[in-house]
Amino acid sequence: MKVSELAERSGLSVQTIKFYIREGLLPKGAATAATQAEYGEEHLERLRLIRALREVADLPVAAIKPVVAALDDDATPLHDKLGAAQYALGPHIEPPADDPEWRAARAEADRLIEEQGWRATPEAPSRDLLAQAFRALRGLGLPPSDSQLQPYLQAAAMLGEHDVGSLDTAAPGLMVRRQVVMTVLYEQILIALRRLAQEDASGRRFSEPQ
Amino acid sequence: MKVSELAERSGLSVQTIKFYIREGLLPKGAATAATQAEYGEEHLERLRLIRALREVADLPVAAIKPVVAALDDDATPLHDKLGAAQYALGPHIEPPADDPEWRAARAEADRLIEEQGWRATPEAPSRDLLAQAFRALRGLGLPPSDSQLQPYLQAAAMLGEHDVGSLDTAAPGLMVRRQVVMTVLYEQILIALRRLAQEDASGRRFSEPQ
Repeated sequence: MKVSELAERSGLSVQTIKFYIREGLLPKGAATAATQAEYGEEHLERLRLIRALREVADLPVAAIKPVVAALDDDATPLHDKLGAAQYALGPHIEPPADDPEWRAARAEADRLIEEQGWRATPEAPSRDLLAQAFRALRGLGLPPSDSQLQPYLQAAAMLGEHDVGSLDTAAPGLMVRRQVVMTVLYEQILIALRRLAQEDASGRRFSEPQ
Repeated sequence: MKVSELAERSGLSVQTIKFYIREGLLPKGAATAATQAEYGEEHLERLRLIRALREVADLPVAAIKPVVAALDDDATPLHDKLGAAQYALGPHIEPPADDPEWRAARAEADRLIEEQGWRATPEAPSRDLLAQAFRALRGLGLPPSDSQLQPYLQAAAMLGEHDVGSLDTAAPGLMVRRQVVMTVLYEQILIALRRLAQEDASGRRFSEPQ
């Protein structure tokens, strides 16, 4: 298809598509003339993924680049490729330098992960995300207790197992794509459903009988 | 305490504190002289909450205003107050006008919620968050199946029940504060733990034996 059709079907402008090609997010089309190129379904699929990462996950183009690189990487073993894609999705928190409260919160996060027996590299960005929440909770005088964390650990373990299990049928290239979608879009689904379930539980517990 | 001490203990600048007072996020201190005021522990507590909402949840000041209003509201029944605070936390998605795919996704989200028997108002922002994820999944050719959603529904129901249950012991004013903290900070914890559990599951399933 021509770039104009690609634009129409992806819902993105020709200008945006050309920008993504310049930035290395999308491979060039096959040149058919000096100023024309032909694009395939794989271009459309890639653009739809980029659009979802931009619009739903609010990721900047710079963060999408390494995700796309993991998708196109055939040499790296699967687990490492999945890891590269997940880490690229962030969120990337800049740990404050020389902050003893931060160090304590990060140590607490690391300890919790180790207690679960979960294997994650020391560079996993989620360790800092966890540390940031722990530090804030301590600052608010509401340090996370075991009984508060327990259902969260349980939900996370169940979902992590389910998510990875649901990748298992696809071809390796597709699996990375699925994992990116899973990590980002099902995270939004989880956030939405938890808040809706909270509202329902609050209604059952606290609202006055009509 | 003086504003300088409040600044030091909250980790915010005097300028920022004065800005929050002007914006109505923080009550004025008790005037002790023409240019001096006295602040209490309640000011410090409020500032720590605002800081967590700004830094961890990345909320703009405009979004924090209605959250604070719910905290200070003694007249509204508890369930409505909890709802007001939760809705104010967003995320606020602007549904696209005249988009049949959006309408279909939103109808699918509403149906799913109804099937659970969850009571949530039609204005709940999480309905749009869910619709946005559903629409993106359809665009990617990966529409959410029942078997994909089931564990998410189950996790959300468990956490919603737990979250609301853990508010139950505190005084009404404190409960809204706790709920804001719960909604925002435990959401970050959930996101982090799920990603870490994914990494662990992926390692067990896919990595090569060393």
